[in-house]
Amino acid sequence: MVINLRLRYFNQKNFGNRGMALESDINLSNEYYLNNNIAVIYKKPTPIQVTKVEYPSRSHTTIKEGFYKSPSTTDYNGIYKGKYIDFEAKETNSKTSFPLNNMHHHQIEHIGRILEHGGIGFIIIRFNLLNETFLIKGRDFIDYIKNNDRKSIPYDYIKTKGYLVKEKYNPRVDYIEIVDKIIKEESYNG
Amino acid sequence: MVINLRLRYFNQKNFGNRGMALESDINLSNEYYLNNNIAVIYKKPTPIQVTKVEYPSRSHTTIKEGFYKSPSTTDYNGIYKGKYIDFEAKETNSKTSFPLNNMHHHQIEHIGRILEHGGIGFIIIRFNLLNETFLIKGRDFIDYIKNNDRKSIPYDYIKTKGYLVKEKYNPRVDYIEIVDKIIKEESYNG
Repeated sequence: MVINLRLRYFNQKNFGNRGMALESDINLSNEYYLNNNIAVIYKKPTPIQVTKVEYPSRSHTTIKEGFYKSPSTTDYNGIYKGKYIDFEAKETNSKTSFPLNNMHHHQIEHIGRILEHGGIGFIIIRFNLLNETFLIKGRDFIDYIKNNDRKSIPYDYIKTKGYLVKEKYNPRVDYIEIVDKIIKEESYNG
Repeated sequence: MVINLRLRYFNQKNFGNRGMALESDINLSNEYYLNNNIAVIYKKPTPIQVTKVEYPSRSHTTIKEGFYKSPSTTDYNGIYKGKYIDFEAKETNSKTSFPLNNMHHHQIEHIGRILEHGGIGFIIIRFNLLNETFLIKGRDFIDYIKNNDRKSIPYDYIKTKGYLVKEKYNPRVDYIEIVDKIIKEESYNG
């Protein structure tokens, strides 16, 4: 499993198909957190609407037709130090801003709800061409959207409000280090 | 959405295909909790391995072949009063015990990890033929498995250790009421 993901990661790096590189990096980081008993965070399965199935045998079901549905929540959630963690991860090839059409409206709403209920919600944004990955708190992300009409969030805002996530060998994207910092800064209840 | 689920629910009641009735009830309860700003808890999408896709147009992807994968975690998670909630829901037609082949080993492991990290993990078990639904704490569930060789957990153990979940009109399966009780009893940190 780890090996497969690594191969996929390097293939993407080599062949320029980088759309999934951040996802692979985060999945590997989550494996690291799980194996080292640091946090239990998973990517949710992609929601698929199945419209046709076949039963080649009593115990097997083959899906013969289905469609990808747009997700109603974020991609990742789990637990760290007893706290509920919830986030979305996105890449962009823009050097100057994060285009908001990358996020569904109900995903932003979902993050708002998580904050309201005392969870830690954020977005991880990678600027592919700058080789920089930021964690921006849900509150700062939502504040920008509420107070601006732009269809993208400027890089400068993300750099100023966000936290640069270190890229390491393992965990590749050490976002828990940042979550730890945020917990200390904000002294979340509990 | 609500109407569809309701119809499905009643169809199942009428035609005896009750395998999904508990799932429908919990999904409706989660909608109720969400709409009333009580808790944010979702069922995770069913994991599917997609092996063949077609692109009938630039913007559409049709899945032409896929398979259901066995889940590595539980079906439901989310947040209530700032706490991480994680559970599995299962029905059985047995009147005397809950067969453990209903649960994957890694699902039980997952619940163990959640408890270790300070989350609230449990299993909701419905005895279809008794019309009774119980919430049993992850700790009590795991304790039984550790200390017994049986391939099922007796009804009496579940009745004694578990909490009977009231079935109402709305929310249909008010498991949050029980979670609240557990939080008070155990005074979880935070």
